[in-house]
Amino acid sequence: MPTSEELLAKTHRPAEDVLRLHPFYHGKIQIAPKCPVGGLSDFAIWYSPGVAAPCEAIHRNPELVYEYTNRGNTVAVVSDGTRVLGLGDIGPEAGLPVMEGKSLLFKYLGGVDAVPLCLGTKDPDEFIHAVKLLEPSFGGINLEDIAQPKCFRILDALRKEMGIPVWHDDQQGTATVVVAALLNALKVVGKEMSRVRFAFVGMGAANVAVYRLLRVAGIDPAQVVACDNSGTLHRGRTDFETRQETCADQWRVCTETNPDRVVGGLESALRGADVCLAFSASGPGVIRPGWVETMARDAIVFACANPVPEIWPWEAKAAGARIVGTGRGDFPNQVSNSLAFPSIFRGTLDVRAKAITDGMALAAADELARFAEQRGGDWAGVRDPANG
Amino acid sequence: MPTSEELLAKTHRPAEDVLRLHPFYHGKIQIAPKCPVGGLSDFAIWYSPGVAAPCEAIHRNPELVYEYTNRGNTVAVVSDGTRVLGLGDIGPEAGLPVMEGKSLLFKYLGGVDAVPLCLGTKDPDEFIHAVKLLEPSFGGINLEDIAQPKCFRILDALRKEMGIPVWHDDQQGTATVVVAALLNALKVVGKEMSRVRFAFVGMGAANVAVYRLLRVAGIDPAQVVACDNSGTLHRGRTDFETRQETCADQWRVCTETNPDRVVGGLESALRGADVCLAFSASGPGVIRPGWVETMARDAIVFACANPVPEIWPWEAKAAGARIVGTGRGDFPNQVSNSLAFPSIFRGTLDVRAKAITDGMALAAADELARFAEQRGGDWAGVRDPANG
Repeated sequence: MPTSEELLAKTHRPAEDVLRLHPFYHGKIQIAPKCPVGGLSDFAIWYSPGVAAPCEAIHRNPELVYEYTNRGNTVAVVSDGTRVLGLGDIGPEAGLPVMEGKSLLFKYLGGVDAVPLCLGTKDPDEFIHAVKLLEPSFGGINLEDIAQPKCFRILDALRKEMGIPVWHDDQQGTATVVVAALLNALKVVGKEMSRVRFAFVGMGAANVAVYRLLRVAGIDPAQVVACDNSGTLHRGRTDFETRQETCADQWRVCTETNPDRVVGGLESALRGADVCLAFSASGPGVIRPGWVETMARDAIVFACANPVPEIWPWEAKAAGARIVGTGRGDFPNQVSNSLAFPSIFRGTLDVRAKAITDGMALAAADELARFAEQRGGDWAGVRDPANG
Repeated sequence: MPTSEELLAKTHRPAEDVLRLHPFYHGKIQIAPKCPVGGLSDFAIWYSPGVAAPCEAIHRNPELVYEYTNRGNTVAVVSDGTRVLGLGDIGPEAGLPVMEGKSLLFKYLGGVDAVPLCLGTKDPDEFIHAVKLLEPSFGGINLEDIAQPKCFRILDALRKEMGIPVWHDDQQGTATVVVAALLNALKVVGKEMSRVRFAFVGMGAANVAVYRLLRVAGIDPAQVVACDNSGTLHRGRTDFETRQETCADQWRVCTETNPDRVVGGLESALRGADVCLAFSASGPGVIRPGWVETMARDAIVFACANPVPEIWPWEAKAAGARIVGTGRGDFPNQVSNSLAFPSIFRGTLDVRAKAITDGMALAAADELARFAEQRGGDWAGVRDPANG
């Protein structure tokens, strides 16, 4: 597999530019004053001795922390660096550029102040414990780039045990945007969500969450054939059956979907499918053009591995796909959680919700689809190559 | 004891102003872009797919995290809210306004990006563990407002176990500024550091650290009589002798200082002293004017309890003190760690030092004293009321 530099060099954002610009600014975000500071004497208000008054007020009524501090607009972007983009377990330091970029998007698109926190542990219990201790300073938690299956347990535990919203963007954010993109793509091709056949490529955190949210949105499991490195998912997948502690979600997909017990690899899953939802860790060549040719008429292909999609969009188009989306911001039809998380947190923080439910995610998907349709253009998965 | 609102109302920063301004801005700091963002397409550089290149580069060479991210300019301001200002154990939420104010000072005076983190635990081991996990995201750690004696153990453990500088500002920062202020105050009154008699008022984190740094600066323990709520410290203080696990520093002061075995309360400690260094948790009236009258000629009084000093400056002056400093930014002669920590971290981060040693603290004190002397004016403890 080529390095990301080599691949980026083929597109219009050469890696040299990226590697030159990052150190030039020494990072992407900084702390800035939110209140006016006219001179040192103002610190008698903002620091000593004035600050004692809001401290005492919050001590008497903890809810006032949302009035007297920035907590209500601040989220932590927390990762352990074990599954960064499609690069894998590269560690917390190497994950920091992604978390900083995420914080930049949080502010630029949602006005949310997000703090990148890459924790130096791979142990999920240590991770959970540390994140819980952060609660008093934050209005919400955005989990990011954590390997599966531990990411499921981490999310479940933190949602249960914390009093502020906890969101795993690679699960819930991705699912939200996929539903939005799918709603509009189906409109373009004139098919109905309840009648299309889905091929899921990769059953990691993203596609497990996509499956779950599509179920909530009303699809029937019988519409789905999922596939991972070991082939299609079905009741005969003893590898999942025997590891239900850590793979409960994948085993559920095995038992619920694929009623015809399609076996074989990706080629089998894609044959006749209307929609291909690919979220794998690997790069190009995962999906071969010949397999796209066997999909149904007006096929929809979302090939979302990052930074290198499972099939290049131009290859998928040439093979007959009508709508193609990727996770990349420099290609048309970006199907990326960055389209959703800033606004979802904006709204969540504004109403001071205690959680972000599946219902909220579906409402956000509807709204995102509506907005993209009104706006048109070549983003959010709504471009119809036949028309423009 | 009056509330801080009542006391603030008597000074020129009414608590109503403070309580009106804090919620108006909903906090004092925010996240801001550090790099230029001209539009959504720039996120192909700062986020997906471009960001993969710096991630991979850091994975190959972890030192590059200082080039490609803001880690090298970012510190965590970490507290558990167990000893906030002089207000005591008011909890992590109520401590947040102080940590935000501290972050504002970090940026305004030192150009350092500081993230306020109030942790939801009072257990020192949990605290230590959580702070260690934060290491990959930060260039340094500033501990703040942690009750003693656990603050000593927390600082020692983190200094030993972390690869980035760890500083407890209430200990080391305070000591640095006291040494600086003392250097200049002694010049004003024409006395020598090695010949003056010290009365320490309160033997908490601040004064334990002040004592330690003054020892490094060369004073003889025989120059010191220390005092806390139970009276002067001496070899007969069985309360400390029997609790040496948690009070090792105070017991050391008992055994090293006060050779004449002065007993009694603060009144005894202050009699004949040249310098009073007060860092107690309590407010006004701790030091009575009549006791200041018994101090040596040209006495120096630093009454640094926050927000309410142990004696009001005007009372100390009227009682014969020549130089009076407090911890407050709205009074002359502020003896506050806020004069030191922004620049100390600025320098520490710039040279990427692994620790902040006592030698570095003394060098900073020298430089701060020199700067204040050159600048003159009514700050940094150098105002001579006889001259101006």
